[in-house]
Amino acid sequence: MNQKQYQLQQLAHLVQGELIGEPKFIVNGLSSLELANENNISFINGDKYLEQAQNSKAGVLIITSEFKDKLPHISNFIIVQNPYLAFATLTHAFELKKNNVGIEDTAKIHPSAIVSDTAYIGHYVVIEENCVVGDATVIESHTKLDVGVEVGKNCFIDSHVTLTGFSKIGNDVRIHANTVIGGEGFGFVPYQGTWHRIAQLGSVHIGNRVRIGSNCSIDRGALDDTILHDGVIIDNLVQIAHNVQVGENTAIAAKTGIAGSTIIGKNCIFAGACGIAGHIKIADNVTLTGMSMVTKSIFEAGTYSSGTGLFESGQWRRTIVRLRQLADVPLTKVIKRLDHIQTQIESIESTLKMRK
Amino acid sequence: MNQKQYQLQQLAHLVQGELIGEPKFIVNGLSSLELANENNISFINGDKYLEQAQNSKAGVLIITSEFKDKLPHISNFIIVQNPYLAFATLTHAFELKKNNVGIEDTAKIHPSAIVSDTAYIGHYVVIEENCVVGDATVIESHTKLDVGVEVGKNCFIDSHVTLTGFSKIGNDVRIHANTVIGGEGFGFVPYQGTWHRIAQLGSVHIGNRVRIGSNCSIDRGALDDTILHDGVIIDNLVQIAHNVQVGENTAIAAKTGIAGSTIIGKNCIFAGACGIAGHIKIADNVTLTGMSMVTKSIFEAGTYSSGTGLFESGQWRRTIVRLRQLADVPLTKVIKRLDHIQTQIESIESTLKMRK
Amino acid sequence: MNQKQYQLQQLAHLVQGELIGEPKFIVNGLSSLELANENNISFINGDKYLEQAQNSKAGVLIITSEFKDKLPHISNFIIVQNPYLAFATLTHAFELKKNNVGIEDTAKIHPSAIVSDTAYIGHYVVIEENCVVGDATVIESHTKLDVGVEVGKNCFIDSHVTLTGFSKIGNDVRIHANTVIGGEGFGFVPYQGTWHRIAQLGSVHIGNRVRIGSNCSIDRGALDDTILHDGVIIDNLVQIAHNVQVGENTAIAAKTGIAGSTIIGKNCIFAGACGIAGHIKIADNVTLTGMSMVTKSIFEAGTYSSGTGLFESGQWRRTIVRLRQLADVPLTKVIKRLDHIQTQIESIESTLKMRK
Repeated sequence: MNQKQYQLQQLAHLVQGELIGEPKFIVNGLSSLELANENNISFINGDKYLEQAQNSKAGVLIITSEFKDKLPHISNFIIVQNPYLAFATLTHAFELKKNNVGIEDTAKIHPSAIVSDTAYIGHYVVIEENCVVGDATVIESHTKLDVGVEVGKNCFIDSHVTLTGFSKIGNDVRIHANTVIGGEGFGFVPYQGTWHRIAQLGSVHIGNRVRIGSNCSIDRGALDDTILHDGVIIDNLVQIAHNVQVGENTAIAAKTGIAGSTIIGKNCIFAGACGIAGHIKIADNVTLTGMSMVTKSIFEAGTYSSGTGLFESGQWRRTIVRLRQLADVPLTKVIKRLDHIQTQIESIESTLKMRK
Repeated sequence: MNQKQYQLQQLAHLVQGELIGEPKFIVNGLSSLELANENNISFINGDKYLEQAQNSKAGVLIITSEFKDKLPHISNFIIVQNPYLAFATLTHAFELKKNNVGIEDTAKIHPSAIVSDTAYIGHYVVIEENCVVGDATVIESHTKLDVGVEVGKNCFIDSHVTLTGFSKIGNDVRIHANTVIGGEGFGFVPYQGTWHRIAQLGSVHIGNRVRIGSNCSIDRGALDDTILHDGVIIDNLVQIAHNVQVGENTAIAAKTGIAGSTIIGKNCIFAGACGIAGHIKIADNVTLTGMSMVTKSIFEAGTYSSGTGLFESGQWRRTIVRLRQLADVPLTKVIKRLDHIQTQIESIESTLKMRK
Repeated sequence: MNQKQYQLQQLAHLVQGELIGEPKFIVNGLSSLELANENNISFINGDKYLEQAQNSKAGVLIITSEFKDKLPHISNFIIVQNPYLAFATLTHAFELKKNNVGIEDTAKIHPSAIVSDTAYIGHYVVIEENCVVGDATVIESHTKLDVGVEVGKNCFIDSHVTLTGFSKIGNDVRIHANTVIGGEGFGFVPYQGTWHRIAQLGSVHIGNRVRIGSNCSIDRGALDDTILHDGVIIDNLVQIAHNVQVGENTAIAAKTGIAGSTIIGKNCIFAGACGIAGHIKIADNVTLTGMSMVTKSIFEAGTYSSGTGLFESGQWRRTIVRLRQLADVPLTKVIKRLDHIQTQIESIESTLKMRK
């Protein structure tokens, strides 16, 4: 893998940090504290990494000012207020990007499609009638844009993505490999013992700066659209059913599923493998811990959880036996009865005392 | 997106409903009550939608007869017994379908394969030795039919689907994008500390009118076949392991997984993200609510559930602490002891009373 | 489907077993006891299959020696110590394999890529700059090797696989259809209300004899690599986040997800749909039962479980009501209070007795 390299002063400038050390020091990689070598830059994301930093061979560290005096063996620093953010900025400087523009000769593009001259269309891409691809958008090999799909500017769509159902995708959107956007929603009417398919007529609308991981399924709406608002970020293997709406800047980790017609607020954070029922609402600023099970609307911002946690299996089996008894044990009454019995005993004892 | 349009009398005829209003009224779309405009048709699926209907701008409503007098502002109706079913029927009238027939010039089809003259084979499809594709079947771009795969009549197979393992697929089957049918089952023999692969020799047999969503994995059997019977409907991101059998008209929602050799009955409904162990049986007419965990056979029809539900996280942590104590608390004995104590106290009290 | 056929003596030789019966008996298939015909070979994997074997029409059985006298209706046997392992060996003899070598004319291979003369590259495969494909490796149709990806010898990569992020893949690796290796990890810095993307600079390193199912997502590391060590086997729809490390010979069943930077030991077995939090460690030889929820490091080998098990739904709802009360019920104190009350009552009773 080829490496990019920069002078230290270029990197300090990029993150608007204060440079301490040798401005022309050559940095050829961004590394973890543990694996950094003397030409790498690394960063300290809080106190708990200090010891690791003291043992690091990194040539440069991005730090907040208070760490400077604690690292006498390091001679080059970039001092910033938020090293983690500065690190994120520098990852873009060291990322190896292809600078492809143009259309590979094996791409099949319908004459009615409008593809920007500054877009890149990879090998074996298929773009059908009335599609639109905006400026500087990269569409990797084998991806399919079915009839009427529109993709905005400066997007990255990786290989084997299927865009269908007349999906409309904003600007600065990233969609990773093998994801399906606009597939048919799971809508069937039960009638006389069989399932009657509801053809899905809605679409998918994806805002700007949305990020979707690999192997996700985001279905088109039944009548109205499925909507991901601006700034939403989604991990891998996530299911978004028809007519779901996800509010701005909400983050959804891998393997979470959201059932049909549910409306999610802004700035929510859902950890991995959560399951969210259909036809409910979730307020803004709701955090769900991993594997949460949401069956009702959540009206209050806050953090919510589900599950039993982990048990040694023998202990788990015993616990489940008790859990099965729980429905028949009036727990709150037990405490009341104990209190009542205590009172009775005290009364008996005082009676006995009086009669002594 | 182009729209289809119909005269009201055409739509009434399609759903075999009673037309009230202007037979030649032009309908150019099927919409939700909320978003319908004056040339759209919408429907009322039960009492709870009446208020929305009273505020709807829809030009036509599909209703049961009792709603007619409650909607004086609407002049066009189709009266039917089951508006939801009529709506499902009309979605097919308004769906924008491609009417492609023929084989795109970039499709690679082995000379031994038999492809119907009325089928459509999209760009970059690969069809290998001894495959069969039936009449009126549509195979979208990039899909792969590995050696010996057979697909029946009137099927729809979306892009990037992988059909392998000698899978046999019936008529009127729909398989959505990026799904894998017939991949190798997960079979390994542990021996001397490593895993020895069992080559999978069974296949996948899919009946008629089966529907499979996007990003599903349905593995071929080890020796015998994995079987989905007629009328089964499956949502996205579902795992069906080797040698599973799913009975007629069973519905499986997104993210559910079924482990190897399990046999599922007819007319079951599994909500999203259920996990079903291997080598068990599930009776006909079993409903599982979302995220159910099935570790043993279910012999009785009925509805079953799992999970703790959702808690505010602080409350959840306290609950889990108690749950961990539960194994050591003899719950049913607590109630017996309380009853026994109560009896003792009553006896003491009567003794005291007598001696007064 | 064409069948392979062997003389019985060939099969006995393959599994190094003792042949009893007719050495030249023709075997044309490997079957389950139930479906075997008189020219098939089947096997007995323990006592519980004896009755099925007694009713089987199989022409040959693979058995341990003690079963021989219990099957008078069978005249041909292969006697081995481990029939299940012998069966696994024979599946490879009966597997229908393509023996393709060479590069299909529609494959797009960058001139800088190095592809072995003994490899097979299917239709519409795209192989980009600086890729390497080793001897006897099969890459099925439509698969994508993005810039810098290296695949070792004797690998099988099925259709629609996306290999990206400079992934390095060892020898004897099998990757099933539509899986994504090396996709971008889910790394974002929250800053002023939006998510700032961390470009992922690490890669994926996959050892020898690793097996990965269909529709999996294995992300590249943020700075360091995501690592699957030798002999790891992974089922379908599995999520492996950035910087996860999985130890040798660990097996991971379908729909399990492992969050970022978690380190898994050797010889672990994770059943289906487990969720494992990020930044934790799991010891060697840990077994997780299905749907386990792991939020903390596991330091001890053993078997662990989570979840409530399955309830009839009415019973489940009542149980959940009690579970919600549990946090406010001091369970362990209940027992202590009962014991204390019992003592008090006994003391009262003896007082009463004395005063009789």
